[in-house]
Amino acid sequence: MSRPSAVPPPVTAVLDASSRWLPASLGQVEALLREQSRDCGERLGADTEATLSAGGKRLRPMLVLLCAGPDGGERAVRAAAAIELVHMATLVHDDVLDDAPLRRGRPTVAATSGRGRAVAVGDLLFSRAFATLAEHGDSRAVSLLAAASVALARGELLQRQDAYDAGIAEERYLQRCRLKTATLFECACRMGEDAEEMGRFGSQIGLAFQLLDDVLDVSGPPERTGKARGTDLLDGTVTLPLILAAEADPSIAAVDLRALDATSAEELCDRIAASRALDQVRARALELVATAKRDLLRLSVDGERRKLLELVADGVVQRYS
Amino acid sequence: MSRPSAVPPPVTAVLDASSRWLPASLGQVEALLREQSRDCGERLGADTEATLSAGGKRLRPMLVLLCAGPDGGERAVRAAAAIELVHMATLVHDDVLDDAPLRRGRPTVAATSGRGRAVAVGDLLFSRAFATLAEHGDSRAVSLLAAASVALARGELLQRQDAYDAGIAEERYLQRCRLKTATLFECACRMGEDAEEMGRFGSQIGLAFQLLDDVLDVSGPPERTGKARGTDLLDGTVTLPLILAAEADPSIAAVDLRALDATSAEELCDRIAASRALDQVRARALELVATAKRDLLRLSVDGERRKLLELVADGVVQRYS
Repeated sequence: MSRPSAVPPPVTAVLDASSRWLPASLGQVEALLREQSRDCGERLGADTEATLSAGGKRLRPMLVLLCAGPDGGERAVRAAAAIELVHMATLVHDDVLDDAPLRRGRPTVAATSGRGRAVAVGDLLFSRAFATLAEHGDSRAVSLLAAASVALARGELLQRQDAYDAGIAEERYLQRCRLKTATLFECACRMGEDAEEMGRFGSQIGLAFQLLDDVLDVSGPPERTGKARGTDLLDGTVTLPLILAAEADPSIAAVDLRALDATSAEELCDRIAASRALDQVRARALELVATAKRDLLRLSVDGERRKLLELVADGVVQRYS
Repeated sequence: MSRPSAVPPPVTAVLDASSRWLPASLGQVEALLREQSRDCGERLGADTEATLSAGGKRLRPMLVLLCAGPDGGERAVRAAAAIELVHMATLVHDDVLDDAPLRRGRPTVAATSGRGRAVAVGDLLFSRAFATLAEHGDSRAVSLLAAASVALARGELLQRQDAYDAGIAEERYLQRCRLKTATLFECACRMGEDAEEMGRFGSQIGLAFQLLDDVLDVSGPPERTGKARGTDLLDGTVTLPLILAAEADPSIAAVDLRALDATSAEELCDRIAASRALDQVRARALELVATAKRDLLRLSVDGERRKLLELVADGVVQRYS
C-alpha cells in the first residue's frame, strides 16, 4: 500500500474557497505541531522538525477543522494536531519497516538517524498525540483516536501477513485499506463532529484516497509522487490495480513478486497500466467520492462547509489527474 | 540500560501477605491482557500472546492496584492493564532496536516474526493501552499514561544519543533512568491514587529498580537474569556501575566500548565488579528504597497496603541478592 504522495492535492483550492476561519485554524494547528519539536533536545528536535516540515497535505487536520466548523475552537485545533501526530508517527514507523530512503522527496528519519531513533521518534510523536488530547481532558477524542490507532496497527500487520501473496481477494485488500487509511479519515471527521454520517463521509473519501494512491504507485509519474513506480510491488504489497489486472491477464497473475527488481517492477507497472485496471480503480474511487458527497447532503452542515468538504472529497481523487 | 530481568522478584511474597482482593484484581488484569490478544487474527494473536505470556513481574500493575487499594474497582484494573500494555509495547520496540534474540529466556517478537511485525505489534499494544482507558472515559489516567509514554520515548532517544559515550556524567545517566524507568513507576502509583507523594514513592523505587537492573547486567548470573553479562556494554549503554568504576580506575575509563565483543564485555564486567562500583550502586538503590518507605509513612494508607507497598519496594532491590 503506497503512502501519501509528495505534492499536495487541491488544498489550495479549499483554502482559497474558505473564509478566514479555516486558514487561521490551520495556522494554529501548525503552531501546535511545531511546539512538539521544541523542548526535545537538539538532535531530537531536528528529527521531529524534519518530519513536521516535510509537510504533507494536512488533509486529516483539515477534515477535523471542517467537520467541527468555525466554532470548533481550541478543542478542534488540538484534535487536528493530534491526528496529524499519529499520522506522522505511522509514516516514521512505516519508513523503518520498509527501509525507505525517501519520503516526499526528503530523506526519512530512518535513513538520516537510523532505525533505532526512528522507532523512538515514532513512539514519541504517538505519545504526544495522546498527551495533547489528554491535557485538555478530551476523552471522546482520545477514545476515537485510540480506536483508529488500533486499526492502523492491525492494518499494518495484515499488510505484512499478506505480503507477496498475489492471490489475495479483493475484499481482503479493501479490509486492509479500511484499517490502514479509511479509519483515520473517519476518525478525523468524527473528532470534528461526532455523527455517524460524518464518519461515513470520512471513511468513504479515505478509501477513495487509498485507491487513488495505489493507482499512482503504478502510474506515477515519479517526479510528482516523489517515489519510483512499483514501490508497493517491490515491497510485496498487493493492491487493487494488480488484483484486477491479474484477473484480466493470467500472465500477470503468474508473476513472482519476490523475484521483482526495480526494472521488472516498472515493467509490471506498464503491463498493469496496459490493462483496464487503473481505469477501473479510478472509477471506483470516483464512485466512492460521489457517494460521500451525496451522504453529505443528509448532514446539517451549512453551505460553506459543505462546499469545502466537497472540495476535499474531490481533491483526494484529483491528484495529478 | 538493561531491561527487566527474567525471574520474578518477591511478587509471591506480596501476594502471600495480601488478603483476597489483590490476587483477585491481578487475575482480572491478566484476563484483560489476554483479551487483547484475541480478535487480532491468528498470527497476530500468537505474537501478542507470546509477549503477554512471557509474563514478567507485573510490577507496574501491582503498584496501580496497591495504590488504588481494595476499592479501586474496575477503573484500577483497567489502569493496571493499560500500563502493562505500554510497558510491553516498549519492550517489543526495544528488542527491535537492539536486535535482541531473547527476552526473559524466550525468543523476542522481532526474532520470531521479523522487525516489521514487531514494530507494528508494539504500536498495537500501545494503541490498545489508550483504547482500554479511553473506552471508559478515564481521562486522568490517559493524561498520566500519555505523559509517561512521552518520557519513555525521550529516555530511549537520550540513550541512543549517549550511546558509546563512556564520559557521560552521572546526572545525565540519572536523567535517562528517570525518563526510561522511574516515570512509568510514578505513573503506576498515581494512576492508583493521584497524590504527589504516591508518585514520589513510585519514582524512587523505579529509580532503584533501574539501578539494580544495571548492577545485574554486570554481575549476572546469566542463568537467572536470562541474558548474557555485559549486554548493555555491548549495546553501548553506559550505566552507573561503569561510570563509578571508571572514576576509580582510569584504565576502565580508557576502554573503547565500540571495540567490545562478548568475551571482552564479560572481562570488563569482571573489572567493574572488582572495583567498589557494584556495592556503591546497590547502596544507592537501597537508600532510595529506604527514602521511599519513609515517604510512605506520610501517606494515609492503611496498614495492609503500607506493608504490601513496602514489600514491593524491598522487592525491587532484593532480586538475586
